[in-house]
This record gives sequence, C-alpha cells and structure tokens, in this order.
Amino acid sequence: MNEALKPLAQTLGTSLVTDPDILRAYAHDEAVLAPFEQPIALVRPKNADEALTTVKFCVANNIPLVARGAGTGLSGGANATKGCIVVCFEAMNKIIKIDPDERIAIVQPGVVNDDLRDACAEHGLWYPPDPASAPWSTIGGNVGTNAGGLCCVKYGVTRDYVLGIEAIVGKGEKVKLGRRTAKGVAGYDLTALFVGSEGTLGLVTEITLRLRPIQSAEKTVVGYFDDLPSAGRAAAAVTASGVSPSALELLDRYCLKAVDKWKNMGLADEGNVLLLARTDAPGEQGDIEADILLDCFEKSGSVWCARSSNETEAEALFAARRLVFPALKLLGSVLTEDICVPRTKVAEMCARINEVAAAYDIYIACIAHVGDGNLHPLIVIPHDEEEAMDRSREALEQIVDHAIELGGTVTGEHGVGLLKMRGLAKEVGPVVLDMHRSIKNALDPANIFNPGKVF
Amino acid sequence: MNEALKPLAQTLGTSLVTDPDILRAYAHDEAVLAPFEQPIALVRPKNADEALTTVKFCVANNIPLVARGAGTGLSGGANATKGCIVVCFEAMNKIIKIDPDERIAIVQPGVVNDDLRDACAEHGLWYPPDPASAPWSTIGGNVGTNAGGLCCVKYGVTRDYVLGIEAIVGKGEKVKLGRRTAKGVAGYDLTALFVGSEGTLGLVTEITLRLRPIQSAEKTVVGYFDDLPSAGRAAAAVTASGVSPSALELLDRYCLKAVDKWKNMGLADEGNVLLLARTDAPGEQGDIEADILLDCFEKSGSVWCARSSNETEAEALFAARRLVFPALKLLGSVLTEDICVPRTKVAEMCARINEVAAAYDIYIACIAHVGDGNLHPLIVIPHDEEEAMDRSREALEQIVDHAIELGGTVTGEHGVGLLKMRGLAKEVGPVVLDMHRSIKNALDPANIFNPGKVF
Repeated sequence: MNEALKPLAQTLGTSLVTDPDILRAYAHDEAVLAPFEQPIALVRPKNADEALTTVKFCVANNIPLVARGAGTGLSGGANATKGCIVVCFEAMNKIIKIDPDERIAIVQPGVVNDDLRDACAEHGLWYPPDPASAPWSTIGGNVGTNAGGLCCVKYGVTRDYVLGIEAIVGKGEKVKLGRRTAKGVAGYDLTALFVGSEGTLGLVTEITLRLRPIQSAEKTVVGYFDDLPSAGRAAAAVTASGVSPSALELLDRYCLKAVDKWKNMGLADEGNVLLLARTDAPGEQGDIEADILLDCFEKSGSVWCARSSNETEAEALFAARRLVFPALKLLGSVLTEDICVPRTKVAEMCARINEVAAAYDIYIACIAHVGDGNLHPLIVIPHDEEEAMDRSREALEQIVDHAIELGGTVTGEHGVGLLKMRGLAKEVGPVVLDMHRSIKNALDPANIFNPGKVF
Repeated sequence: MNEALKPLAQTLGTSLVTDPDILRAYAHDEAVLAPFEQPIALVRPKNADEALTTVKFCVANNIPLVARGAGTGLSGGANATKGCIVVCFEAMNKIIKIDPDERIAIVQPGVVNDDLRDACAEHGLWYPPDPASAPWSTIGGNVGTNAGGLCCVKYGVTRDYVLGIEAIVGKGEKVKLGRRTAKGVAGYDLTALFVGSEGTLGLVTEITLRLRPIQSAEKTVVGYFDDLPSAGRAAAAVTASGVSPSALELLDRYCLKAVDKWKNMGLADEGNVLLLARTDAPGEQGDIEADILLDCFEKSGSVWCARSSNETEAEALFAARRLVFPALKLLGSVLTEDICVPRTKVAEMCARINEVAAAYDIYIACIAHVGDGNLHPLIVIPHDEEEAMDRSREALEQIVDHAIELGGTVTGEHGVGLLKMRGLAKEVGPVVLDMHRSIKNALDPANIFNPGKVF
C-alpha cells in the first residue's frame, strides 16, 4: 500500500482496498475506446460518514476521487484517472424508505435500479426511469449520468424523479440539497445541477425520489417499413396524433440483420426498419391509443404492422430489441454512441450515419428511442482489426458533428464522460464551457471530484 | 436624467425611460410588506441586443439590474433596489415559433402565459403551467420564479417545460443554454439552474418550451367536510387510490366565509372545508377516475359531495376558488404566504396556521394545492390597522418556521424574493447558502443581477 494512504486505511478498515486485482476490476466503466488508469485505492463506504472521511482525506492530500456505481456507464465517466481513489457505492445499497402516502422513496446510492422498481411495485408504486442497464446499474450511477431509458418518451428521465439528495461536497461537508415535498422553489435548484454532473461536484450519499402510481398494462404495436424516411414519417404521425406512447423504438436493418445472423429470426425478411410502440393508457383508452398507433404506421406506408393480442406476443416482439446488443457483441467490440436530434431529423440523422459507416468502412447498427429523437448508433469494431479502432473513433466524432449540425446534442442520456468532451465543447461554445468551469471551481475548490472529465 | 445614464439613453433611445411617474409603476411587484426603492431608470428592451447593451453598461458602471415581467410576483423578487435599473421585458412579447412536429414553442420572455396557451391550443397543443396570474404574468417571469399552478399536481411546474434559454450572462455575453431536443445530458443543467433563480444569474431573452398534446375535457368532483383532518384524509385517499388528479384544491372555512360575505353564496353553510378535484383522463377512464375521487371523498367522511354533471356546473364550482382572493381584498391588504409541506402534513399545517392566527389576532384564510401539499395562507391586514402589519410580519415568519419543522419548504411556487430570505437561510443552512453564494459569484462576478435578493 502507498504509504500516504495508511491513515485513511486505518480509519476505514475493510472499506478500503488496495489489492491490485480488485482495483483492476474497478478501473473503468463499459465505454469502449475511453482511456483509464489503475487507481491507487478503492473505497467502498458503508455509510455517508466513511464517504465524508474519504473526501476530507483526499482534499488534505490532493488526491482525485472518482465515484462509481455498477460501472455500466458508456462514456468513461467513471474511469479511473492517474493517482485517483475510486469510490464505489455498492455497499450502500439500502432502500431506506418507500412512503406510499407521500409517493416518495429514500435510497442509498448503491441500490440497483430494478431492485428499487421491484420494491416499489409491492406498494403499487413505480419508479419510471428504465435504462437498459436497469438490472445492474445503481440509482447513484443513474443520478450521476441523468439516465434515461425506454419510457422517458412519456415519463421523463432520472432528473424528473430526484426531489433531493444528500451529498458530500466542497472540502468535506455533508449537505442536504432539494426537498422531500412535491413542490419547492427555495433557492437555486442545486439538486438538478448535481443530477447529470457525472461526479464532478461531489459524492451523492442518499437520494429522495418521486414515485408514480404503478403503470397500467401496456399494449404493443409493431410495424415494419421499407426505409428510414417512411419509419420517420410514422414516428412523426404518432407525435401529431396527440398520443403519448410509453415507448417508441426504432431498429434499423443493421440491427435486424445482426439478430437474424445470431438467432435466425428472419426479422430482416419482413422489412428494413422495425418500429416498436407501446401505450400504457388504462382500460378502453389503451385500446383506442393502440389503434391510433397502428393507424399511424399504416398510413405512413408500413409494409407490415400489427397490434399484439397478448402480453407474451408483445414481449416476444420487444425481445428483438434486447437481442441487438448481444448480437452485435458477437461481431466485435461495440462502441455505443448516444446522440439526440430534433424528432423530425431522425431519418436524416440515420441517413447520415449510414454515410459515415460507408465512408469509414465500418458496421454501424442504429437503434433509437425515436419518439425522443435519441439515437444509439452501435459501432462494431471487429476484434481482429486493430486499426478499425481509429476509424471508429473518427466515425464517432463525425456522427457527433452531424448531430450538432442538425440542431441536436452530443449526448441524450449517457453523459459526456471522456468520449464526448470535444463534442460538448463544440456544442456549447467557449462561454458556456467557462460557465461550467466557474461552477466547478466554485463548488469544488480543491478540484478533487472527478477532475478531467466532462470539460 | 442621471448624467451617468446618458450614454445608455443615447444607444437605447425610447427603450430607456426615466419619467418618475412611469418608474414608480415599475418599482415593485405585488408582494405586500416587501420594501422597494425608486429605480434610476427603466429599460424595456425591444430585442436581446438591447438587453446585452444594458448589461454591458451596468457592468461597466456598477449598476444593479432588476429584471421583471408583468410584476405579478408575490415575494418582492422584482422590487427595485437602491440605484438600480429595472429591465422589463414587456416589449419582447413575440411567440417566435410553435412547432407541432417537435412539440416545442420558442418565445420571447414578455409573452403572457395565457396568450401562449391560447396560441398552443390552435395547434392542438398545451403549455400546462397555470399560475393564478396566467392572464397577466409572462413566461419570463414564470421562468424567473419557476411558477406552478393548479395542474402541477399532475403535470409539473415551469422548470419541467423549459428545454433551453437564451440569456445575457456574466459581464455581458449572450449565450444559449440547454437544448431544443426532447432529451439531453450534455454538461451541467444550467437551464434548470436559471429557472427559479429570480433574476440573480442573468437576463433571460428567449425560452424554448416543451409542449404537450392538448388536455382532454376535465371532470370535476367537489366535497364538503366538517373539519381539516377529514379533508386531509380525503386527499390522502386520493393519493393512495393511484389516480393522478389534474387539480386537487382545498379551501378552508375562512375562505368560504369571506366569499359568502361578499357574494352571499352560502358556501360555509354546507361545510367547513371544501375540496375541489378534477381529472382529465380521456373518455371512459375519466368517468372511472371521477367515480374513484368521489368514493375517496365519501369514505373519508364528506358531509356532502358530488360529481358535476356538466361543464358549466363544474366551472361554477371552481369559481368559488377564484373569488377567494378578491373577497379577502375587500377586507384589507392580503399577504399571500406560500409554503409546501409533505402531503400527509397538510391538515397539521392548517391547524398550526389557525393557532398562529389566533395567537396574533389576525384573519388567515387558507387555500391549498392540497395534492402537492402546497398551502397559501392568506393573511388579511385590515387597511385601518397600521400595527396589524407587524403582527402579520411575525405571523408569516411563524408559519414559515412551522413549515420547516414539518419537513416542508419555505416556498412552494412563489420564490424567495425578499420575503423568504430568513426562511431560506434557516431551511438550507449555512453550508448550502454558501454554495448559493459561490455560484452567484462564479456566474455574476460583477454582482449586478438582482443583488440582495434570495440570499
């Protein structure tokens, strides 16, 4: 152990780890192409006081701190930097309270998203944000990146559900930000500032979440389309219809082909683009909305569309979506892009992505939360092609530039981390970037919270 | 004219006003008991460039700037301070764009809330935030205070609808914050930070808003109760039922009596507390939800409750609510309090307010967005009782302290302004207050944006 760490180790006991093998497992998130270093130590605090002790020690010794949850991030935000201590909140995984009368939950940051959702369901309540990582990712990590998911098209993202947080900030102060009431405008919305700040402003040690009544059973409508423009028209028709779908997903032919190659499902035989829509409007209204969704698909030129007649069939239809990522992983490393464009620019953005793929001779499959304009181009880097890395890196930056050009943003729900730093700077410009730096300096004068990330 | 102002007057022409009679009309908002001064000038910018010019001039000459919309605020946030220039955005009142395909609106800050709502309705769209001031208050003012309203119990507050803003910040830079896409996590959420910052971080010159599909026709349920605890139980039963009402309002007997005294409506003969609930679930689901609301009222001991059978009747039922404020104004100046407590503490809070009223020998009527726990105790200060002012001021602070004690916040939707500065400091504590100051210093190094307000 590094000699300088000994006082901290004495205080924290087994909460501090320096075994190199363990450290290696905590050195990075799931971002492909993002650099990382070996941390000098891992702290797994058992409570907020241990986190506070760690912050005070790091301030005194000028040691950077990188916070992480389950490490399912896709932008390198939780990657260890030189000489840092990684703080992982997996041991703080208690659901402190679910209060049906107030419709709130109070949780520690290490609680896994799906575990919270299950616990809420027992009270007839629902925590909507549903990132694809929900079976593993933690609420603390979700807060750090302001995670989204499928149902945000109707129900919003993590920030929309965080009422308040407890955090260790500044030079080692434990504070409560926000509130536990339904409304409140007392002072700056520091809670919203912390959500999505990717660990650069402090360590979040407790989260108070707004909950909703449990979701009604969903009804599913699927449609195949010949090309992206007609699928884009169908998505636009849904927006114009006044229906708010609880999910509206797009899979392009590169997704369908990859799944077919693996599972031989014959998806790509039906059409080149698949749209999956859901409505959770209760009772008869759900039927009305499902019919409207189907009508939107039909009149936009769907080559085949249908409404699922039962839950099992609906699940099978959505299963294709979940198979895309593992199917592509069989072909190589998958660099998950995450851009968001105005809804009406989705088809144009997809076309530009295809051009980028052709220009750089790489395989890019496109999956999209199309109702939000949030696209995930999945760049496949074959394991045996070392120099495909560089082409992929360039393709990623090209896609980012196209998103900005179309009035979009460089990250819809994954965060800036390390992969989108150039993109963020380009998107917001130097003055707004300076505003970020000013706030960071103001709240983290010792510059120990995840320095070198985001901007 | 102040000699020092001449260069600015030359540049701005008629956009700058120094006529003392006009200045007087722009010296304060509608807060009772909040101090104000005569401003040295009024600027009514015609465009963002004139706002930019004003900011640069004020930075160079160390002149404080107080931004305002229609001046309907209730906390003194827009009150002129010594030596300040008031910037009123009434001349920047264009709806730049309503885009149904993207479900967004882009507006100048001076657009009146109801005007925007009317314009959206023409496109089958809806901008939900509906403060009581909606016929007069502006979107810029609503952004400054993060205004709420009746329907936020289901649809959220202003911040939930602001995607991005253009603002004049720092020492005179025009920036775009946020985005126009449905989702985005690129950098800190500076937009959320500016919303509700009460003009302390810059001048907002353009706002991009998220819109919703137009609301379905509402169904109304009313219930009279003998006392606050049973009305509180009814509100809790609504929460537990899983129904999300589009409004859930409470009027206590002091409200009912004041309306009766004026309009002789006999409201207080029916019961001591009136609950008004609405649902906007479409079609058959609306009927189901209205029946559930009625059932919640009945089983909680309502002495009389009913569902309105038509729109006109429903309007008449809700009209009583709108009459409360003018009815009280006949009795004296009305100091509108605004606190928010956990939903389950509403009845307890109302009881404590009654105790405060008795202790200070003042008339306090209580109207509440009870579904949110957001209460507006209305403190009546008789015109002929000079010393009732002091008692009212003390009563206000007592109520604020009770709200904090019950786990609530000192302001649910009106903002801190001048009236809640002590309350905010007590609610958040010295460390969080310092975080506010650090951010203010970081983003407003010249300290010209509404200094001396909020904290």
